[in-house]
Amino acid sequence: MSNSSSKDIIKPGLPRGLRDLNNLELKLLKNIISKISKVYESYGFEELSTPAFEFSDALGKFLPDQDRPNAGVFSFQDDDEKWLSLRYDLTAPLARYVGENYDKITKPYKRFQVGSVWRNEKPGPGRFREFLQLDADIVGSDNYLADSELIMLACDCMRTLGLDKNNYSIRVSNRKLLDSILELIANNEQIDDARRLIILRAIDKLDRVGVSGVERLLSNGRKDESGDFTKGAELSKASISKILDFLSIDNEDRKKFISQAGSIVNKTVAGQEALKELSEIDLLLAKLDYKEEVLFDSSIVRGLEYYTGTIFEANLQFDSSNDNKFPVIGSIGGGGRYDRLISRFRKDQIGATGFSIGVSRLATILQMAEFQLGEPSNGPVLILKMDTEFDYSYYQIAKELRDEGILAEVYVGSSGMKAQMKYADKKNSPVVIIEGTDEREKGIVTIKNLIKGKEISTSIDSRESWIKNSDIQFEVDRDKLVSKISKLLNSSN
Amino acid sequence: MSNSSSKDIIKPGLPRGLRDLNNLELKLLKNIISKISKVYESYGFEELSTPAFEFSDALGKFLPDQDRPNAGVFSFQDDDEKWLSLRYDLTAPLARYVGENYDKITKPYKRFQVGSVWRNEKPGPGRFREFLQLDADIVGSDNYLADSELIMLACDCMRTLGLDKNNYSIRVSNRKLLDSILELIANNEQIDDARRLIILRAIDKLDRVGVSGVERLLSNGRKDESGDFTKGAELSKASISKILDFLSIDNEDRKKFISQAGSIVNKTVAGQEALKELSEIDLLLAKLDYKEEVLFDSSIVRGLEYYTGTIFEANLQFDSSNDNKFPVIGSIGGGGRYDRLISRFRKDQIGATGFSIGVSRLATILQMAEFQLGEPSNGPVLILKMDTEFDYSYYQIAKELRDEGILAEVYVGSSGMKAQMKYADKKNSPVVIIEGTDEREKGIVTIKNLIKGKEISTSIDSRESWIKNSDIQFEVDRDKLVSKISKLLNSSN
Repeated sequence: MSNSSSKDIIKPGLPRGLRDLNNLELKLLKNIISKISKVYESYGFEELSTPAFEFSDALGKFLPDQDRPNAGVFSFQDDDEKWLSLRYDLTAPLARYVGENYDKITKPYKRFQVGSVWRNEKPGPGRFREFLQLDADIVGSDNYLADSELIMLACDCMRTLGLDKNNYSIRVSNRKLLDSILELIANNEQIDDARRLIILRAIDKLDRVGVSGVERLLSNGRKDESGDFTKGAELSKASISKILDFLSIDNEDRKKFISQAGSIVNKTVAGQEALKELSEIDLLLAKLDYKEEVLFDSSIVRGLEYYTGTIFEANLQFDSSNDNKFPVIGSIGGGGRYDRLISRFRKDQIGATGFSIGVSRLATILQMAEFQLGEPSNGPVLILKMDTEFDYSYYQIAKELRDEGILAEVYVGSSGMKAQMKYADKKNSPVVIIEGTDEREKGIVTIKNLIKGKEISTSIDSRESWIKNSDIQFEVDRDKLVSKISKLLNSSN
Repeated sequence: MSNSSSKDIIKPGLPRGLRDLNNLELKLLKNIISKISKVYESYGFEELSTPAFEFSDALGKFLPDQDRPNAGVFSFQDDDEKWLSLRYDLTAPLARYVGENYDKITKPYKRFQVGSVWRNEKPGPGRFREFLQLDADIVGSDNYLADSELIMLACDCMRTLGLDKNNYSIRVSNRKLLDSILELIANNEQIDDARRLIILRAIDKLDRVGVSGVERLLSNGRKDESGDFTKGAELSKASISKILDFLSIDNEDRKKFISQAGSIVNKTVAGQEALKELSEIDLLLAKLDYKEEVLFDSSIVRGLEYYTGTIFEANLQFDSSNDNKFPVIGSIGGGGRYDRLISRFRKDQIGATGFSIGVSRLATILQMAEFQLGEPSNGPVLILKMDTEFDYSYYQIAKELRDEGILAEVYVGSSGMKAQMKYADKKNSPVVIIEGTDEREKGIVTIKNLIKGKEISTSIDSRESWIKNSDIQFEVDRDKLVSKISKLLNSSN
C-alpha cells in the first residue's frame, strides 16, 4: 500500500453515497450556513464543535428518521480496542457534552452546531451517507418559550434565505397528542412496542400514501407501487376510525385545530397537556407575526425514540419553474422536545428542545427549484504568462489587483496564449491582462474584456467586428491598469 | 443500546486525543479559516470538498510527518465489506479526485480545501487525533512559478493574520539537494531504503538535537533525555562530515546559500537541478518583496514518501509575552512538489505542488503567544422574562434589536431575576432590558448597562454608589429603546 513506485494503476472512485463538492456547490452551502448561523447567533445561541466520532455507547443509537428502521452507524475500534462510532446526528454528541459539562455550562444552554453526520445505510437519489446538519438546541428549560423560540427561529432561518411565506411552512404537533390517541385505542386493544411503531409509522406516511393508504397500514397492510408489502397494525375498525378522525383535523387554522383536537383527546391527561402547550405556542406566535406560515398538523410524528412534547417540521414548496416540472417539495428539517435523552448520563431529567436543518438537503431543493441565493460572482482576473523574464511583473500586477480586493492570478502552466485564453474562459475570468515585450516597451498593458466579449459574440455574428470592437480589447497605461479594471468590474455587476 | 428507559447511567466522556471546541475557540478558528481562504481565493484557487472517508486503497498511506513512522489511519468496513479509511490529510483525496476527473478539470488545477483529518496514533500535549487542515495545491504545472506562488501564498497567509515579518519565516529547500547528498555519500557506502530513512530523519532533527545530535544519529545512534535510544545510520566519518558540511550552509542569505550549496552538490545532476530551481525562486521572490522572511535551509526534509522537488515549511516565532515564558515557536505547515502521487491513478506523470496549513496547530500557537486576532465581541443583549403575559413583548423587543444587527435574546428559563442577571453575566451580555408591570404602565423600559457596571464596580468600592449611578441603570421610553441601545453599544466599542 505504501509503495508509491508500484506500477499498478488504482482505479480512482468514491464509495457509493459519498460525493465531492465543487466550488459552486460549496458557495451555496457556505452561503446557507453563514446566513443561518448569523440568525442562530442573533438569538444568543453559542457555537459548539464536537469530534466526528465518539465512544459508541456514549452516542447510543437514536436515529431520528423513523422510516429507516435499518439505519446504521459507522463503527470501528481504535488502538485502545474501544468501539467508536461516527456521529449520525448532532444531538447525541450534545447530550454527551451536556452530561459531561453540566456544572460548567450556562443554563439554559443555547448552542448551535454545524457539521457532517454519517449514516451507514443504503444510499439513493438525493440520499447520501455523509451530509451536513445545522442544529440549534436549548438545554435546561422546560418553559414553552424554548419550544416557541425554536419555531420562530425556524421561520427566521427560512426568511433570511429570502424565501417567501408561500415557499415554506413550519408544521407543529405534540408527541402527547399521539400518546393520547394511543391511550384511547388501547382501551380496545393491546398496544405493545412493535404495534405502536407500526401505528406511528402509518400516521407519518399520510402525506405520501393518503388517507386510504394509512387506513390499509392500520388494518391488514399495504402493497406499494413497487410491489413491496408493508405489514399492517391490524387494528379494529373503531380504532382505525379514531385515528383517521384525528388525522382529518383541520390543519389550516391553528385555533380550529386546537378545538377539533380537543374534542378527540381531552379525555386524557396527555391530550390536555398537549392542547395547553399548543395553545401557549399559538398565542405567542399570533402576537409576533408568525401566522399562516406556522401550522398545526396531526400527522407530524418525527423520530420515534426520544421526542416527548412539541414536535415540528420545516417544509419547502416551490411551483415548477417550467412546465415540464412537478412542484419541488420537501422537508428540510425539524425538531422538538426531548426531555429524556440527556438522562442517559444523569440521574435527573433535563428539559431539552432542538431544531435541526438538513443543510445538504436544503441546498439540493433550492438548486432544483432554481432559487438564487446571492449574486453569481466572477472568477479571477487572469494575467497571461508571456516572457519568463517578466514573471515578477505579472505577479506585481496580480498583487496590485488583490490589494484592491480583486481576485487575480498569473497563469502558472507552460502552455501558449491559446491555451491560456481557454483557461481564462473555464475559470470564468472577467478580464485577461497581457503584458508582452511590445507593451512593456510602451509602458502599457493590453486588456481583454471577456464579459463584454461574451455579450457581443452572442449579439453580432461577424467574427471580424468582434475582434475590432474596442470595448473588448484595448490598451491602457500600466499605471492606470488597476483603476481601469476596478471600473470595468464594478460596471459589469 | 437503544433502550432509553434503561436506568444505567453512562459516564460521559471523549476518547483520548479528541476534544470539544467552544464558542471562543471556534471564533478564532473560523477567523483564521476565513482570512486564509480569502487569500487562497484571491489567487484564483477554487474550493473543493471531499468526503471524510474513502476507499482505503485509494487513499493509500502517505503520512507526511516523517517523524511518526507508526502513524496510522482509522479504517472500517461498510455493508459492502469494502475497506474504508478516514482521510489522514487532504492531499491523498485530491490525488484521487484529480485521477477521477482529470479530463474535466481546468488545468493547471488550483484548488483549496479546508477540513478535519484523523490520525490513529498516540495523542499527546497539543497533538490530537482529529485536527483541521487548510490546503492549497496546484496540479498540472511543472513550472517553477507554481512552487514560487505557493511560497508567496504562505507569506501572504501569515501577513493576512496580521503577523509581523519577525514572527514568521518560510524555510525552503529542495528534495533534489538531499538526493544529491545521498548520491555523493553512496560513492563510499551502501544506501538502502532503511538507511536512507535514518539519514533523512537525522537531518530533519537538526533544530531539535543540534549538530552533535545529528552527528550521533549518523554514526552509532543517540540516547535522548528520556533514555530512549535511536539507532544510528553507522556512516563513515567522511560521509558524516559531508552531511554536516551540507547542514552548515548559511541559511540567512539566499544568494550565499546557493553559492555554498553549489560547492557541495554541483557535481551531481540532481544537485544542479536543485540549484537552478532555488535560483529561479530566489530571483522572482527578491523582485516581489518576499525577502528576509523566505529563507533557504538545508535541514528541511518534510514527508519522506512523496516530495520530489521544492519543499518548504512555515514557522512561527513569538517572544515570550511575560518573563516566565519561553518564546513560542512552532511549525504550522508546509508543502512542496510531489510529482509522483497522482501517477498512482494514471500512466502519465502529473506535476503537482501544494501547501498545507495546520489550522488547529496555528490557532494553538496564536493562543499561547496571546496574539489577538480581531476584536473580542459582546454577547447578546438579554431581555429579562418578567410576566408570562408579556412574553410576546420581550420577543418583540428582541426582534427590533436583531433587525438592527444587535444580538438579542429573551431568557427562556423559569428562574427569577437574580438567576437571570447571573445568566446575562455568564453570556457576556452588554446590556439587560427589564420591562415589568410598572414599566409597561409608564410606557418605558429599564436598562442595565453591564459593561459600565463592570468598569465602575472595579473603580469605586461603595456598593451604594454603584446602584445609584445613573449610567448603569436608567429608564428610557419604549419607542426610543433600540436607538438608545445602538448608541450604547457603539460607544462601548
